[in-house]
Amino acid sequence: MSIIVVGSTAFDDIETPKGKKTRVVGGSCIYFSLAASFLAKPKIVSVVGNDFSKQFFSKLNKKNIETSGLIVKNGKTFSWGGKYKSVSEDPETKFTNLNVFENFEPFIPKSYYLANKIIFLANIDPDLQNKVLDTVDSKKFIGMDTMNFWILSKRKSLDKAFNRIDLLTINELELGLITKKNSLDKSLKYIFDKYSLKYLIVKKGSAGSLLATKNELFWIPCYPFADMVDPTGAGDSFAGGLFSYLAKSNSITKKNIIKGMIYGSSIASFTIESFGTDKLFKLSKKELGIRFRYLTKMAKII
Amino acid sequence: MSIIVVGSTAFDDIETPKGKKTRVVGGSCIYFSLAASFLAKPKIVSVVGNDFSKQFFSKLNKKNIETSGLIVKNGKTFSWGGKYKSVSEDPETKFTNLNVFENFEPFIPKSYYLANKIIFLANIDPDLQNKVLDTVDSKKFIGMDTMNFWILSKRKSLDKAFNRIDLLTINELELGLITKKNSLDKSLKYIFDKYSLKYLIVKKGSAGSLLATKNELFWIPCYPFADMVDPTGAGDSFAGGLFSYLAKSNSITKKNIIKGMIYGSSIASFTIESFGTDKLFKLSKKELGIRFRYLTKMAKII
Repeated sequence: MSIIVVGSTAFDDIETPKGKKTRVVGGSCIYFSLAASFLAKPKIVSVVGNDFSKQFFSKLNKKNIETSGLIVKNGKTFSWGGKYKSVSEDPETKFTNLNVFENFEPFIPKSYYLANKIIFLANIDPDLQNKVLDTVDSKKFIGMDTMNFWILSKRKSLDKAFNRIDLLTINELELGLITKKNSLDKSLKYIFDKYSLKYLIVKKGSAGSLLATKNELFWIPCYPFADMVDPTGAGDSFAGGLFSYLAKSNSITKKNIIKGMIYGSSIASFTIESFGTDKLFKLSKKELGIRFRYLTKMAKII
Repeated sequence: MSIIVVGSTAFDDIETPKGKKTRVVGGSCIYFSLAASFLAKPKIVSVVGNDFSKQFFSKLNKKNIETSGLIVKNGKTFSWGGKYKSVSEDPETKFTNLNVFENFEPFIPKSYYLANKIIFLANIDPDLQNKVLDTVDSKKFIGMDTMNFWILSKRKSLDKAFNRIDLLTINELELGLITKKNSLDKSLKYIFDKYSLKYLIVKKGSAGSLLATKNELFWIPCYPFADMVDPTGAGDSFAGGLFSYLAKSNSITKKNIIKGMIYGSSIASFTIESFGTDKLFKLSKKELGIRFRYLTKMAKII
């Protein structure tokens, strides 16, 4: 089963209490697709500049990731620099150079589209997310991520998108920014009253994540033994794991979403153990399986 | 079923981002016993000064709490002042006046002892905890709490106690202080290699709590909708709820400890919604039941 992911590809300069790395390949769709590649065939829709290494394309292809929608444009690849004062806080953005991403027009190749039931719109400009949604039929299961920057600058466009998708992943701070409510119950009521989406996932960092539907709430733990080095990409890896689990199970139920979140948490716990995508590339299915089973057992409390 | 709790009774001056209150009745055994009173008959072993109101004794007795081991001494009641900069952090201690607590010699009345299988040693000087343990037979199920102050100042005494109890509750910071390890897995290994205790509960504030045994780990969520006003007493309320659940179920199994932790989390979620013990006194069994069932459902993810 394959999944389409629309998102960014980037060079990241990352500084955390554990060290510093420059020009690390990252971006939401890279983390997402690497994480998703264990259970599904991810198909990337993104753009890079001609400074992006051809070798990296083949590294992705070797991981069963389809890159024909990863367009190369004349110019420089999107780059971002961030510094994490502590690994549990949002990073301070040092610079954002959109470069070729500035004029990115996401386009889902027909070859991608037909066999796919699942699409993930990773964190990019909500205007672009809406453009993709214009071309997508309503039978697809659509997940979406966003960030504080878009919540503050393009709220109308986000509101539009939130009514066209099935599942939204955000973090606690972003939920508060969207709803302007000071409590979780009021925030959830706001979301499900205002938007037609069915599933809201609230990422809480090392405190795990919540799955909310209109009437129910579940708490999914995260792997507590991870050796945090760099949190970049944790959310996208989590989403990649979750959506690949849904693609593999071929049935989108609350139960499978919960299991998928445990699977996604397992992968994210590896992502954060190295800078960038290093660990995701090296990770074996066996290692991942051990952590997934551990987390499943840990979560099975009653 | 009754439970013996040995701990402090205090007047607290509390400041949180939500307000300020002075001379609030608190102390570990007050929070513990109020929380435990819904399912069991708590029997307090503690000391107060003659400035402590007689009325409060009858308020406790009306809640089915036995106070014949709550000794009145000439002098002032133990008092503590703390300021929480944020409700998720440990408070800054403004003052600690031990007063009558300075010469406290905990003594379990014979009338308490006979029918009881469960004893909780709330956070007090570990020398005193050991004195109680000297008088306790090994068939009792013994829980214990402590804090950073004793970990740093009376480690030998704590080590001795840790080898005489069944269950220890501490928070994440305290676990790190005890083990001096920088990861959870190393910390757990340290605890279970070094001490004979069977259950370790690591309290993680709004991120819930962990139950660890030598070979297993479980994550228990906390109620996510609580309207935090004052975190004081949350840990003692949690323990009171847990131990009353064990007393009521009359069988100390891993499963009952987990259910008891969910029950304890439910009660603690009320404790923090008011200054001091206000909410615990007003709380109805029905309200508590609703939150317990909600949290149980929320935790039942797979």
